[in-house]
Amino acid sequence: MTQAKQIETVVLDDANSALVIVDQTLIPNETRYLHLRTQQEIWEAIHSLRVRGAPAIGIAAAMGAYLGVKGSTAPDFERFYEEFRQVKEYLASSRPTAVNLFWALDRMEACVLRHRERPLAEIKAALRAEAEAIKEEDVRANRAIGEHALSLLRPGIGILTHCNAGALATAAYGTALAPIYLGQERGYRFRVFVDETRPLLQGARLTAYELMQAGVDVTLICDNMASAVMRNGWVQAVFVGCDRVAANGDTANKIGTSGVAILAKNYGIPFYVCAPTSTIDMNCATGREIQIEERRPEEVTEQWYARRMAPEGVKVFNPAFDVTDADFITAIITEYGIARPPYTESLRELFRRKESASGTPGPGSRGI
Amino acid sequence: MTQAKQIETVVLDDANSALVIVDQTLIPNETRYLHLRTQQEIWEAIHSLRVRGAPAIGIAAAMGAYLGVKGSTAPDFERFYEEFRQVKEYLASSRPTAVNLFWALDRMEACVLRHRERPLAEIKAALRAEAEAIKEEDVRANRAIGEHALSLLRPGIGILTHCNAGALATAAYGTALAPIYLGQERGYRFRVFVDETRPLLQGARLTAYELMQAGVDVTLICDNMASAVMRNGWVQAVFVGCDRVAANGDTANKIGTSGVAILAKNYGIPFYVCAPTSTIDMNCATGREIQIEERRPEEVTEQWYARRMAPEGVKVFNPAFDVTDADFITAIITEYGIARPPYTESLRELFRRKESASGTPGPGSRGI
Repeated sequence: MTQAKQIETVVLDDANSALVIVDQTLIPNETRYLHLRTQQEIWEAIHSLRVRGAPAIGIAAAMGAYLGVKGSTAPDFERFYEEFRQVKEYLASSRPTAVNLFWALDRMEACVLRHRERPLAEIKAALRAEAEAIKEEDVRANRAIGEHALSLLRPGIGILTHCNAGALATAAYGTALAPIYLGQERGYRFRVFVDETRPLLQGARLTAYELMQAGVDVTLICDNMASAVMRNGWVQAVFVGCDRVAANGDTANKIGTSGVAILAKNYGIPFYVCAPTSTIDMNCATGREIQIEERRPEEVTEQWYARRMAPEGVKVFNPAFDVTDADFITAIITEYGIARPPYTESLRELFRRKESASGTPGPGSRGI
Repeated sequence: MTQAKQIETVVLDDANSALVIVDQTLIPNETRYLHLRTQQEIWEAIHSLRVRGAPAIGIAAAMGAYLGVKGSTAPDFERFYEEFRQVKEYLASSRPTAVNLFWALDRMEACVLRHRERPLAEIKAALRAEAEAIKEEDVRANRAIGEHALSLLRPGIGILTHCNAGALATAAYGTALAPIYLGQERGYRFRVFVDETRPLLQGARLTAYELMQAGVDVTLICDNMASAVMRNGWVQAVFVGCDRVAANGDTANKIGTSGVAILAKNYGIPFYVCAPTSTIDMNCATGREIQIEERRPEEVTEQWYARRMAPEGVKVFNPAFDVTDADFITAIITEYGIARPPYTESLRELFRRKESASGTPGPGSRGI
């Protein structure tokens, strides 16, 4: 059993004082690794979505914060801390609404303060270790989600996924794609159908790309072909990620998810949401409380195209997410286990399990 | 009550011996009318989809056949008939699988033969009248479909449609869009949601365009947003056209239609198929007998884009159509009335009604 080949989304190259990322804006046409050495380069890479996906952004920022003070020659802790605070504020400004970014940087700051009595070299080493720990915890959570999910599947089945909840959005494995990678390592030979995911094409650009790199059997379809694929009997399970899960199991995820869930139920296919507990918001009672972001019309009428493909001035409804009713979700799979309906009870039980474990609490993971 | 402004898809300009069409390959970026005078120009316009949609193609070919022999100076009927046959065969070769094309040209040939004893000028006049009759019958059938459909609707409702079964595919009104145009003429103020219809974007390019020209309130959405729009309570009826209806009501139509039908049923929204009786194939028992055409991967990965949007070599499933089970269809609306489940009986009744009427039988209307 060898690890499935995955794109390295974020790597700390400490020997060369560089943050190494794959430039996601060039995928799928080019796989170019960037070696980011200055704070400006790291800031720009996060800002311009060269690295994207909530967990991946958090890891990049944590590693960036370490690199930002690695060369510090501050004479005392106060001066060092001041330098760190400047680095932190600068990186935090790269994507103003990214929850994971702030969470990771806060955690790095707590690490600095925890070591305030130690020599500078030791604080720096602790920061490097903390950044690596954030990454390792992400990998561990994703692998745990993957293991739980894989326990539900048999080899050779067809799986449909929507958008990109994959390795490119995380340190490795992704969430919805974690069982596919683990299955690939164990010879499960899944056949994966990837919704292209209009308008931003995360499925066509990112999911198809990363799964093909890992040698997975991938078939790309337009979003409106999911029903035909299910009708043909080619899909035995659907896996999606999520942006926010309410306490009753209602789930906000990439636009189109609720339609896939309704189709799956119609065809008798189980529909699974992969959710790190950090994305489950127990203070949000139901999906009705979740506000849905609407985005620019040009994403639908112009983006990617050689020329405009809809009439000038046409009205466009372009929601970034939709809410899938808990009724359509067969199970919610977290790093602490599998929740089944009724979710109001099963999710509460999962959180009890989490609190009794020694895990570090994660951030709310939202965003595109 | 004024007629809703519609694009003139196909017009015979007899005074100038020209076939006038709007070049659909330039829509929505440009509304350019082409004045086609030579047989080569007419052939090329059909071949290159400048005029498209089964009924529109048939009308263009019939008018083209008339123009092709209008200037004939044949000394006798035999020579004239020979000239006509050459024109017919040439135009028939423009789109080898277009059923309406052959049907319309056969009908023109029958007209020639019916008038074989008459003077040349009279035969030509009969051909012009026959071409105009084919067009007028199409308009009449579409208006009849529209009237039947409109009887099901109340003013101000939201309507969702998929692909283009509109004026651009016919002489006027279209089939699925006919109730929308008639409603527009009568101040119904429908709010119409148009699925963009990947991969060929007939919704974004053609339906949004022609409805906006008519002053209809149009909102463009990506196919995967239909569920969110329905969930918001914005849609009270779905109207689609069809490529082929089986005797039990199963309906083949543009890819994505079956998914929309399943969503509509889930949200309790009526789902209507507008079908000229010419597209109902009583010799086809169920949808299982309908073969679905698969098309080039490049339509999904490359077409319209400034650069390729999916990995090189990715497998693509690209069916042009899907089959909607009769169970999901609230009613099938034809020019002879509205069929409701069970369709095996109601469609047979409609055909009895058609046979007792004096209508000219139409072609099977398939194709893109």
